[in-house]
Amino acid sequence: MRTLLHSPFDPISRQVRLILYEKNITFQSREFHPLDQKDDILAVNPAGTLPVLIDEPPTGGEIAVSPTNAIAEYLEEAYPLPALMPATSAGRAEMRRLNAWFCDKFAPEISSYLTYEFIEKRLKRLGQPDTERLRAGQKLLDWHLDYINYLCEHRSWLAGNKMTIADLYCAAHLSCLDYCDLIQWRNYNFAKEWYAKIKSRPSFKPLLLERVPGLPAARHYDNLDF
Amino acid sequence: MRTLLHSPFDPISRQVRLILYEKNITFQSREFHPLDQKDDILAVNPAGTLPVLIDEPPTGGEIAVSPTNAIAEYLEEAYPLPALMPATSAGRAEMRRLNAWFCDKFAPEISSYLTYEFIEKRLKRLGQPDTERLRAGQKLLDWHLDYINYLCEHRSWLAGNKMTIADLYCAAHLSCLDYCDLIQWRNYNFAKEWYAKIKSRPSFKPLLLERVPGLPAARHYDNLDF
Repeated sequence: MRTLLHSPFDPISRQVRLILYEKNITFQSREFHPLDQKDDILAVNPAGTLPVLIDEPPTGGEIAVSPTNAIAEYLEEAYPLPALMPATSAGRAEMRRLNAWFCDKFAPEISSYLTYEFIEKRLKRLGQPDTERLRAGQKLLDWHLDYINYLCEHRSWLAGNKMTIADLYCAAHLSCLDYCDLIQWRNYNFAKEWYAKIKSRPSFKPLLLERVPGLPAARHYDNLDF
Repeated sequence: MRTLLHSPFDPISRQVRLILYEKNITFQSREFHPLDQKDDILAVNPAGTLPVLIDEPPTGGEIAVSPTNAIAEYLEEAYPLPALMPATSAGRAEMRRLNAWFCDKFAPEISSYLTYEFIEKRLKRLGQPDTERLRAGQKLLDWHLDYINYLCEHRSWLAGNKMTIADLYCAAHLSCLDYCDLIQWRNYNFAKEWYAKIKSRPSFKPLLLERVPGLPAARHYDNLDF
């Protein structure tokens, strides 16, 4: 049975869940929480990171795919429809540049500060958020949101005129920050319009239903007209 | 004119140079050194990282491709021969897992300590290596070399029975460490045999000819029979 090992409020895990939902690929969900033992993850991914997709490809056998970009490329190859990558090499290059932006830049600069301080620390019972780290994250977040807003002003979707994996990656990260009410949407009109579009997709619904125990969602989190 | 913006002793830049050399794709080299201004990089890559490939694809126009994995995927799509990726989805998934290993794990855990302390700090005139950071990097390096050695024991090449981009990525990182004589090859026989194979390829020659000003290469660095 196809299985995804993931963590519900880990933005990187959410990136892959959105791809699976968009492609209507059913899977068994195996959730890990920050305090869980890593042995079962290490058994299928020597790097010990989430998410990991265990798949039974049409060609037979069983494979464990990780990390997130390898899963994205694999899913597009093995389940090409609906396409979530641009049709040209140049288009895919631009999408992959943005994918890397969210994995290699947004994640360490923003999510590892803000999402960690607000959500993961709570799940790990490590106490209150550290105000200095929050300030550092919030400052860089403004800069990133300016860039996202700029892209949304000039393009229908982040990488061009069609929704691609770059949009799902970005939305996965923003969804966790939005849960914590960390995005001043009124300052980013183009990004807000784009996020409203993506948030209204059926693929987003499972994410909007999730809650962190003891940490209520921002009032507008699951409101499609925010 | 196709141009690569890169830094000669940056392992991530070397990853892409090896792909270009293996595919016999000619390019104009535009070298950056750690103290150089980043403006020209930022003009073609908003993330400000190296390498960046400026290409004139067969379909016309000019595109700037970055970061390293986007370049690798782009080159394989635009210049498919000789193939540097496995023929199956499952094979490519395994290669991409290893590619990510070197970019997301080896680079921050090893290269950003050891290559930085020995080479980049010297190029930036930041003084002597920090012994504590060296100790931390060296300890983790042994663990990584054990894993590489294990893969080489069980497979002809890192990702399977053909040379792929994963081999080039790994060799790019090891080449910088080997320059500084940081690898005790006698403890890793299978990895040594694999490295001797890849080091003997014509694609490797340009790397073996480079020198860091003021830091002599290990005596065996450019010796194919080490």
